[in-house]
Amino acid sequence: MDYHNQVTALSRILEPHSVAIIGASANPDKRGYQIVKALKKAGYAHPILPVNPRGGTILDLPVVSDIDALPDGVDIAVIVRPAEEVPDILIQCGKKGIAGAVVLAHGFRERGDGGSAAEQRLRDALVTSGVRIIGPNTSGMLNCSVQADLIGLPELPPSGPVSVLTQSGNMILSIVEDSRWINGPGFDIIAGLGNQTDLGYGELIEELSHRKSTRSIAIYSECLSDGRGFLDAATRVGQNCPIVMLRGGRSIEGRRAALSHTGSIAGADDIALKVLAQMGVTLVDRSDELLPVAALLATSPLPRPETGIAVLTDGGGHATLAVDALSRAGVPLATLSEDTKAKLRKVLGDEASVENPIDAASAADAYPDVFPECIEILASDPQVGLVLTNGLFGAYHIRFDTSLLKAENLAAERIVALRNATGLPLVFHSCYANRKPENHDTLRNGGVQILPSIDWAVAGCKALFERANWLSRRGKSDHKPPMQAPPVVLPSGLSAETTARGILQKLGVETGEWSAAGDADSVESAISNFAKPCAVKLDSAVVVHKSDVGGVRLGVTQTASRSAVDSIATAMASHAPPVTTFGFIVTPMVNSGVELFVGATKDPVFGPVVLFGSGGVMVEAMKDVTFRAAPFSPVEALDMINETRVATILDGFRNYPTIDKQSLADFISSVSVAILSMKNLSELDFNPIIANESGIHPVDVRLVGK
Amino acid sequence: MDYHNQVTALSRILEPHSVAIIGASANPDKRGYQIVKALKKAGYAHPILPVNPRGGTILDLPVVSDIDALPDGVDIAVIVRPAEEVPDILIQCGKKGIAGAVVLAHGFRERGDGGSAAEQRLRDALVTSGVRIIGPNTSGMLNCSVQADLIGLPELPPSGPVSVLTQSGNMILSIVEDSRWINGPGFDIIAGLGNQTDLGYGELIEELSHRKSTRSIAIYSECLSDGRGFLDAATRVGQNCPIVMLRGGRSIEGRRAALSHTGSIAGADDIALKVLAQMGVTLVDRSDELLPVAALLATSPLPRPETGIAVLTDGGGHATLAVDALSRAGVPLATLSEDTKAKLRKVLGDEASVENPIDAASAADAYPDVFPECIEILASDPQVGLVLTNGLFGAYHIRFDTSLLKAENLAAERIVALRNATGLPLVFHSCYANRKPENHDTLRNGGVQILPSIDWAVAGCKALFERANWLSRRGKSDHKPPMQAPPVVLPSGLSAETTARGILQKLGVETGEWSAAGDADSVESAISNFAKPCAVKLDSAVVVHKSDVGGVRLGVTQTASRSAVDSIATAMASHAPPVTTFGFIVTPMVNSGVELFVGATKDPVFGPVVLFGSGGVMVEAMKDVTFRAAPFSPVEALDMINETRVATILDGFRNYPTIDKQSLADFISSVSVAILSMKNLSELDFNPIIANESGIHPVDVRLVGK
Repeated sequence: MDYHNQVTALSRILEPHSVAIIGASANPDKRGYQIVKALKKAGYAHPILPVNPRGGTILDLPVVSDIDALPDGVDIAVIVRPAEEVPDILIQCGKKGIAGAVVLAHGFRERGDGGSAAEQRLRDALVTSGVRIIGPNTSGMLNCSVQADLIGLPELPPSGPVSVLTQSGNMILSIVEDSRWINGPGFDIIAGLGNQTDLGYGELIEELSHRKSTRSIAIYSECLSDGRGFLDAATRVGQNCPIVMLRGGRSIEGRRAALSHTGSIAGADDIALKVLAQMGVTLVDRSDELLPVAALLATSPLPRPETGIAVLTDGGGHATLAVDALSRAGVPLATLSEDTKAKLRKVLGDEASVENPIDAASAADAYPDVFPECIEILASDPQVGLVLTNGLFGAYHIRFDTSLLKAENLAAERIVALRNATGLPLVFHSCYANRKPENHDTLRNGGVQILPSIDWAVAGCKALFERANWLSRRGKSDHKPPMQAPPVVLPSGLSAETTARGILQKLGVETGEWSAAGDADSVESAISNFAKPCAVKLDSAVVVHKSDVGGVRLGVTQTASRSAVDSIATAMASHAPPVTTFGFIVTPMVNSGVELFVGATKDPVFGPVVLFGSGGVMVEAMKDVTFRAAPFSPVEALDMINETRVATILDGFRNYPTIDKQSLADFISSVSVAILSMKNLSELDFNPIIANESGIHPVDVRLVGK
Repeated sequence: MDYHNQVTALSRILEPHSVAIIGASANPDKRGYQIVKALKKAGYAHPILPVNPRGGTILDLPVVSDIDALPDGVDIAVIVRPAEEVPDILIQCGKKGIAGAVVLAHGFRERGDGGSAAEQRLRDALVTSGVRIIGPNTSGMLNCSVQADLIGLPELPPSGPVSVLTQSGNMILSIVEDSRWINGPGFDIIAGLGNQTDLGYGELIEELSHRKSTRSIAIYSECLSDGRGFLDAATRVGQNCPIVMLRGGRSIEGRRAALSHTGSIAGADDIALKVLAQMGVTLVDRSDELLPVAALLATSPLPRPETGIAVLTDGGGHATLAVDALSRAGVPLATLSEDTKAKLRKVLGDEASVENPIDAASAADAYPDVFPECIEILASDPQVGLVLTNGLFGAYHIRFDTSLLKAENLAAERIVALRNATGLPLVFHSCYANRKPENHDTLRNGGVQILPSIDWAVAGCKALFERANWLSRRGKSDHKPPMQAPPVVLPSGLSAETTARGILQKLGVETGEWSAAGDADSVESAISNFAKPCAVKLDSAVVVHKSDVGGVRLGVTQTASRSAVDSIATAMASHAPPVTTFGFIVTPMVNSGVELFVGATKDPVFGPVVLFGSGGVMVEAMKDVTFRAAPFSPVEALDMINETRVATILDGFRNYPTIDKQSLADFISSVSVAILSMKNLSELDFNPIIANESGIHPVDVRLVGK
């Protein structure tokens, strides 16, 4: 199956122009009846082909007796039969040229041991048949534009720009209800992925992003079967189509293979959060924000990068809460120009606050047009990237006087026209949004979302700014494929430190000044060459904690070199078991500075990952660490540095030296490129790295191969 | 005005049996007309007395020509006249025995300089008249049980157990709409506090807590005019009536006077969060959670302390999200007994998961009674303190088959009966809650809340558990008034360290071994007495950073004592300006350990506050600090310790010694008691305190008086 065929099969599955129901039933209690009924009820205009050996009719549709009797080239089959029959059915489907199937049955992998044989038979059938499947153990799929309801919802939701992928059938119901609740912009595709035995998130987001009708993808995921593949897909898809993700199962311990050292610093959830955000995925923590944020991303233009938000309000409390929430979300307020403020004052009167947030309170009560008037003024201020209007918008006729209704409707129309003319992103909150006044629908039909919760509106604003900044930052990053060295197979287990540094340097990581020494003479000559006191350390692939067993001597001068070597040798002789073969590594002492940590590992889900954070024991307890999927540019590494708490100290806190963050970022980025060449990386730790006025000094290097 | 009269005045204000409208108008555009109309529309059954010199009638009510002509003892006046007239009106009201007034006018303090004279005249009139006021600059007050709408809402919200205090008129509208949205349990009193020139949060929560009809108080506050008074009131009120608070203006910098050293560690918002929680106030961060949480606290019994939550669900996705959110909120899952699980299995079948979360999915689709059956089983498990049911509850007739409607309604009735019989707290989420099916109202009418957002439901569960734990912890704390020493006036400015330690010891704070020494002989004899190397430090009220100016010598032995004294004396002579009068403080050296910080200050809003956190420069950048209002017990101090990140290290992290947290808690608590006796405390810092296997050693003590 080449790429082109895959795309075709997938597009046929997602937008089927014929549906066969394998296991259709005339019994209204059976799923095989309900699917047929749901398709008819939804108004599906293409062939519905019930299949059942009994024949007859179901809901006036003639029943095909078996798959062989189906017309050739049906787009999708919904398989309602139990697990044990599915493999054979798939093979029959393949023979008839059916592109794909929705497999509802459970009893596969998710059953544990009992289901793994069934899962293997299913996988074999997938290979044999060439049929692509959604599921098994799924509640189905929905295409709102062709009105193909293969789930059987109470009502087909309105067609619109949001597509949904989820691993939970009930989350489909939730998202559809959430959309009803906020009069959301409607759906394109909704699919329950089930076990992801075949089609997974990565492949489906790519296919969805090719659909003009999908403008954002909302995901509920409990497990990314191929995390690395998803990251790769997400970063491609993200260029054109925003992805919003709610992750489930974040708190369940032991869900992921422990990452020896990494695992002790931060749970794997932290890795997922960072690498997904790195690839431009918008993450939401709350189930009630998934749909509102997806709706905003699907319908709103993006703010220009490096701009801020203007909050236009009709009440101090709402404005204060919006500003607080924006501050927590890290969305900056725009600094309005004097010109803008002068113009606003003309509209709002001398007493109104025209600082941001802009308080239209007294002017707005009887004259709803102040909102479009203010928005028009704000649209021409280059610092304003987005206007968040909050308060009572559109409900003065409810709150004060029904006579305001007409003026409010006109104001909404003017706002939509303004948004179309200027391209300025607009987000609205109204505490009356649940009353669903007509003018709110005017906004929504014009692509402007109006939400009943300030917090949802702010979550949406945050997502729009973050996406704008992500796209802009990607534009700035160097996108040439990083110069990658030929693959290296690491020694299995711990490498001697000189071996580790040698490998890293070949892969372009600057590990500083060091010298390997086999005996006391070479140690002395190394110290003499460095012309300053040095650390003399055991160089061995056997001893893990050298300093705990007398394998480290610090501040060794040329004259003291022999006694240092002797004491290490003595310690090794008394080691249990004695260490007989070893050398030394000599490194010049560095001045004190800030202790940092850079590490790398192969995450079981997301592949090669780099860690950065504070070094040292005390600060390790502070869990000050962040993550990125490798490789990445120094621009990304700088972001990484700046999101740790130790970043404060790097800028010259109290008596600490100021650190060259750019060098540090270059170093971290070089590590992220180097590890891609390591075929069997288990762990790489630079701990600590001493950063001071003279540079970035990796004091200890630990490399472990699988 | 004695306490008894205050209570009477307040209760008359909050539940008025007659209302005068000063400045009533026949013009429908005027506020003075709208108030009269709103009262009539709300169905207010007591005298409505419009006052206007023009006389006549308004909405068929006879207009009283002036305040003098009112009957004696009207409960409340709504003053619609402008700011400048208000003081005289209040004096007239006082003469007629009117208990209180709602003052709508703005143009007082909030106008800045222009309004401060008006504010002073208002304050004078308050004293002269004895009338208590709500406002000025308020949108009014509402009593739903007597249907007194002094705000003028579109419709009077239903009467119920939630009372609301807010500083924003629009937040009143929001809260009322939020309640409509979730079919909330209704309101008792709603009041906009405005400038709080007279009545503030503290006094009003006390009065509300005396009302049987108020079962929870929801507060939106931007500023507590008397933070300490509020804390005192909150902790009394909290015994009987839960308080939920949403705070506004948290992000505005410079809002509060900077707390010299404290301010650099953490923003004042952090102090507010901690001291309010300490006093049992439930804090919400999101405006959309204020009403749902208040509704739950008003209607649900509390879980037994030391129990956990059982999650009963009909779908894996919803359950996973609920468990994740509970984990983030710190609410423990209950460990179900084997007996419970066996019983659940009988109801749910062998394949269902009867671990917590309990998945009723397959059983529930066609048989809604599994929910009450499972809840009944869970109610008899002593580990289960609360059951959170989540998923599709009550909407199987929408999702699957209308024939389930009746069974679902019966299930809801059974659940209410169970809740009444067992007293078990029940919280529901249903993604169909916005459809408002009849059985959801059955639950609500039975005092069981059902919410459309998992996150809101979890926020409510968190609030219930936190409140239960707060009440239980208070029960355990020692509530005897702490033994408080007589007041001490601190030296103004910095105290010499021996002075500081002396004062602290008199006030019951154990500052460890130290000795004051005036000259080299006494230093030597002090070291000799301690019989180990000591720190010899300058003792002076002049030098702030002793170690920076050569005022500290560490590890001084008896033989080295003279040279240590000499070197400090030399340093003082070369100090600019030279320090001529000084002594020495001698303290035995302590082994290394964990560096901690204990501090105290007088917060401008909340009064005496104690800080605890990590010590040392590096960790200061990590902002690992927490706060409590003084005084507090060692039980509270232990909580304080355990919420810092450094607590991990105190339990014996890596090579660190295990610290006796109880001693540390005793120390912190003793500081919290001592500072109450300090009449003019500005700052007190113990930084660092070295905690190690031998105890808690305050190494440096810094005390500053105002």
